[in-house]
Amino acid sequence: MQANAVNFSEEVRRAKDSLPKGLTEGVNLDPIDWVSPDIKALESLASLIDHTILKPDTSKQNIQAHCEVAKKHMFFSVCVNTAWVKYAKELLSDTSVKVATTVGFPLGAMSLLAKYHETKIAIDDGADEIDMVIHIGALKSKDYNLVFDDISKVKETCGNKILKVILETGLLSDDEAILAAIIAKSAKADFLKTSTGFVPQGASTNMVQRLRYIAGNSMGVKASGGIRTSEQALAMIKAGANRLGVSASLAIIGAGESAGSY
Amino acid sequence: MQANAVNFSEEVRRAKDSLPKGLTEGVNLDPIDWVSPDIKALESLASLIDHTILKPDTSKQNIQAHCEVAKKHMFFSVCVNTAWVKYAKELLSDTSVKVATTVGFPLGAMSLLAKYHETKIAIDDGADEIDMVIHIGALKSKDYNLVFDDISKVKETCGNKILKVILETGLLSDDEAILAAIIAKSAKADFLKTSTGFVPQGASTNMVQRLRYIAGNSMGVKASGGIRTSEQALAMIKAGANRLGVSASLAIIGAGESAGSY
Repeated sequence: MQANAVNFSEEVRRAKDSLPKGLTEGVNLDPIDWVSPDIKALESLASLIDHTILKPDTSKQNIQAHCEVAKKHMFFSVCVNTAWVKYAKELLSDTSVKVATTVGFPLGAMSLLAKYHETKIAIDDGADEIDMVIHIGALKSKDYNLVFDDISKVKETCGNKILKVILETGLLSDDEAILAAIIAKSAKADFLKTSTGFVPQGASTNMVQRLRYIAGNSMGVKASGGIRTSEQALAMIKAGANRLGVSASLAIIGAGESAGSY
Repeated sequence: MQANAVNFSEEVRRAKDSLPKGLTEGVNLDPIDWVSPDIKALESLASLIDHTILKPDTSKQNIQAHCEVAKKHMFFSVCVNTAWVKYAKELLSDTSVKVATTVGFPLGAMSLLAKYHETKIAIDDGADEIDMVIHIGALKSKDYNLVFDDISKVKETCGNKILKVILETGLLSDDEAILAAIIAKSAKADFLKTSTGFVPQGASTNMVQRLRYIAGNSMGVKASGGIRTSEQALAMIKAGANRLGVSASLAIIGAGESAGSY
């Protein structure tokens, strides 16, 4: 991996230089070759939702109730911390609801090898999808090879399981967000994801549009962080998201209130 | 481990019942058999401080500057995320400043096996002390055996390295905090630690006093979360802390301002 990545910084810079100028200057651009999912009724949003419960004081009972709701409304998946993967998988074994989980979450500052092990264990426990946080500090330090290796190692571990790469755009400059997205794409991630939901700034339609531009049709884009209404959810999809990370899932599909904040 | 822990819930309850009544009812009690460190000058606080930098966007340059400050003022340790342990250890190799790191941080909801691997890797990378977050959700679910096993497995991995157990008391009821402290003591942790600094409520002198009561003389107590002034730091020590987790370390020892918030 290191051998191929020797000139990675240069590659990233070149890729970034080749992007339409507007993309790095805050101008909205229509995503290219991308047709947003056609949502005719709010309930159909359910199939795009990772129904998310990541608060540290989440109990076994909370996980159970959460999975019940996911089953009833046929959300795409539940998203839980790795300590709960095995239990969630048991609860959902007779359904098509998938289990997504988080790695290196929410700080992204876990050692590369520890992210690898957390991923491997989660997959052994039954996780279908992995939402990892990038090494934000390495990006800030312009150590793009390390950012690449970190993602690449986790993707290798994922095999055919889906890897979503959380960029935590709320902590990044526009340039850094674009660079991170390009690196994640190079490392063969399956999805670009905006946010953990644990820093003040979550998803924006503007950022989702940029990420879709970089993703093209070959990757997914997941909007997450601060999405609490149907209107926000629909705007994210229109901007280019094909997956939503939300805890207020019931409110979003018009099926009542949801207590969670992330 | 499981075999010994069969009646653990009962053991914990018994231990809790044997505590002086006031301890579970919010009444301050003088710690027993404990003499607080005698701080004659603010600078001597440095020897009790884990100089802490855990923000997700911490860069290599930030870590370098942080370690410089720790060397200059002879803080007890630097506390960094696992991604930075190896680098911090390199920077501090010719000093007596130790490297502390966090495991399962800050949510504590990482799978038991992943905490084990993160600990092992951190120690291989040069960590002297491990600050792990308990499985808060297991505690909330009254699954005390799991809380015990989670800590016990990490302590086994630590060997003779110091294990501090973060209870995240801001998310716990008084009873839960006491139970968690008793479980951590039973699992042979070296320190009880109040908080991650990532939830609104950090250390209180009242909680530190309770933790010291449970710790007695055989364990350490680390106060962390929201300590930003010399006065707060001294109050925590008077209450029973013998270690402080702070990022505003320079302000606390009277050597100027410190920018960090955790």
